[in-house]
Amino acid sequence: MTPVARPDAIRSHNLALVLSLLHSDGEMTRAELTRRLGISRSTVRALVGALGELGLVEELVPVGGARVGRPSHTVVPHHGGPFAFGVDVDPSEIVVAAVGIGGEILAKSAVALDLHRSVTPEHVVDRVAGALQRVWREGRPDAAPCGVGVSVPGTVDSRTGVIGDAPNLGWRDVDLGRMLAERVPDSVPVRLGNDADLALLAEHRRGALRGCSDAVFLMGRQGVGAGLMASGQPLHGHDGHAGEIGHNPLDPAGPPCHCGNRGCLEVYVGEPALLALAGDGGPPTRDAIARLFARARSGDKHAVDAMLGVVDPLARAIAGLHNTLNPERVVLGGSLAGVFEVVAEQLVDAVAGYCFDLRREPGLVAPALGEDSALMGAAELGFAALLADPLSSAKL
Amino acid sequence: MTPVARPDAIRSHNLALVLSLLHSDGEMTRAELTRRLGISRSTVRALVGALGELGLVEELVPVGGARVGRPSHTVVPHHGGPFAFGVDVDPSEIVVAAVGIGGEILAKSAVALDLHRSVTPEHVVDRVAGALQRVWREGRPDAAPCGVGVSVPGTVDSRTGVIGDAPNLGWRDVDLGRMLAERVPDSVPVRLGNDADLALLAEHRRGALRGCSDAVFLMGRQGVGAGLMASGQPLHGHDGHAGEIGHNPLDPAGPPCHCGNRGCLEVYVGEPALLALAGDGGPPTRDAIARLFARARSGDKHAVDAMLGVVDPLARAIAGLHNTLNPERVVLGGSLAGVFEVVAEQLVDAVAGYCFDLRREPGLVAPALGEDSALMGAAELGFAALLADPLSSAKL
Repeated sequence: MTPVARPDAIRSHNLALVLSLLHSDGEMTRAELTRRLGISRSTVRALVGALGELGLVEELVPVGGARVGRPSHTVVPHHGGPFAFGVDVDPSEIVVAAVGIGGEILAKSAVALDLHRSVTPEHVVDRVAGALQRVWREGRPDAAPCGVGVSVPGTVDSRTGVIGDAPNLGWRDVDLGRMLAERVPDSVPVRLGNDADLALLAEHRRGALRGCSDAVFLMGRQGVGAGLMASGQPLHGHDGHAGEIGHNPLDPAGPPCHCGNRGCLEVYVGEPALLALAGDGGPPTRDAIARLFARARSGDKHAVDAMLGVVDPLARAIAGLHNTLNPERVVLGGSLAGVFEVVAEQLVDAVAGYCFDLRREPGLVAPALGEDSALMGAAELGFAALLADPLSSAKL
Repeated sequence: MTPVARPDAIRSHNLALVLSLLHSDGEMTRAELTRRLGISRSTVRALVGALGELGLVEELVPVGGARVGRPSHTVVPHHGGPFAFGVDVDPSEIVVAAVGIGGEILAKSAVALDLHRSVTPEHVVDRVAGALQRVWREGRPDAAPCGVGVSVPGTVDSRTGVIGDAPNLGWRDVDLGRMLAERVPDSVPVRLGNDADLALLAEHRRGALRGCSDAVFLMGRQGVGAGLMASGQPLHGHDGHAGEIGHNPLDPAGPPCHCGNRGCLEVYVGEPALLALAGDGGPPTRDAIARLFARARSGDKHAVDAMLGVVDPLARAIAGLHNTLNPERVVLGGSLAGVFEVVAEQLVDAVAGYCFDLRREPGLVAPALGEDSALMGAAELGFAALLADPLSSAKL
């Protein structure tokens, strides 16, 4: 039998429900909250009041309306409320943002990394710590952050939070979270997640996967990985390593991969492969990739041919995900969003051709959050403790 | 807030919990039930009493014990209680069983299908209906079945229960459940499931996946498919088609597959491939497969070489599942159980070599239920309605 819930536990649970709903879905009236949560009007009033006293939400009275009768109060995340840091670590660039409750980016800073040098964890922590200070000053200098979330291109052990293998950074067994925690105030939790997992989380909460229960976010940058969701729940696997499809063996006799094997998917569809197909043998910097897509969009044949060159291996991988997980939608993120923009029709046809018994469109979509999916997902990790227990904000 | 449960709903829920636990875990004392379910002794006594009156469980007093004090009553599924039919439809053979509550096979009948002729749904329904009558008479002639579960080698639409595509049977859009329902009493529900999905269900409930939350059952017969579980929940996907990895494109330039594409995984590791590798070009009958494994076990070089010949494509597929889903265990079922028995060491090494950042054994195991995993999973489908609402048995 369900154990009897104590009144304070019920209240804390309900505060979390209301705050999470306003955080993900934005402003709504008390009447909408009542309907969406299936609780009484008086309970909603009390919960909104408590969240207001905590400085987490505020109520606005619409002005200038022409309707007769008392205007309905609108409840919104507090514009001066708490914020979280999102950090997106990619081999070519670190992006840091201060994100307000409700998902507004208050300040953002990008730091290019030198792909010719080795990117050590110490160097990354230094650059991240500096960027955190900048966006804090710029975004919400008078408030304390409620958490830091960090997106990394590699496996993150679900039990320890330690990075296991991030081959495109050349990192193995790096406790980046502990290192970064030493550079932020003691009370601020630091949590790590895999980039594709976090991108999926953000797109599900406020993007292209809203309301979708079975979904994939396919992240293609220097490496390739997938964030997975089944029956509305994120799928992390036994060790937290699920979604590492970039290292699925497409051709065991193919070119060598950073991971030590040969012919992995990411060797064929990662950013270095895209650049090489377009005749550019340089490192996959943000600029080089941006130039390639600009050329492709303007119809440059070499650039378009490079996009067409990844269609077949990419379609095989996406069809493999369809056959395995049968998702409703598949978001193509990172550089794959650019590929999808240029050769969408060819890709959809190729995926459909490889799928088994798929009687609908394969559901390929672009990320609603653009290049910020992983960054915003990282900020969601930063908000996690507050959203789970809004009363904890009283301690901030 | 959690809605208030009505007392009769709570009672029905608790009856279901007790019956499901005894069904999957077998006999236990009232004290164990109290501990496992976390409910009071008096509630357990009342629930067991009610299930006893429904003829679903019985209490046994151990005899001949040497312990001092009052012996503890043991609660067991009723040996004369309800039963379900399990039906396992494979292109080469249909197996039908009457299975008692608790999982005992009361009677079983196998019908060979002629692989030289087309296997029509009508023919299969005729043979299944005949076999159901035989095992009913033999197993529990005095009782009514509580349901029929059918395992099929193909996709089953999760909304309609209709078989979508079963390429090794040559079937598309076949409502086998409706056809079979016309051959059993009106009150007996007929439900269909994919063979690998049902095999996973049975192995999780009473086999090699007991207590395992992230798991794969890889079924290799004429075709290949996977049953998937993530965080303790079966993974079926948006249309119910998840796990169709037999049609993942291993080599788009490879030999043609029944599905219409080329180079699908099952072309390389299905039973016809195994036989061909051993120099036997005949149809993959149960007998031909059994002879091949007998030869391999006795050390026949051609037979062992055939097993070795599937190691690499099979390892690529299993590593792909590991990279994608990060399961704790992977059951190798159907003919793949035989392959695993003969070349386990080579297969484990090859899988480990292809996996990304896997720091443990890949967790390959044989099915605890032998060749009956899908059959027993089908019977579980037959029990589903009774286990969800034990009070419904009063109507049987």
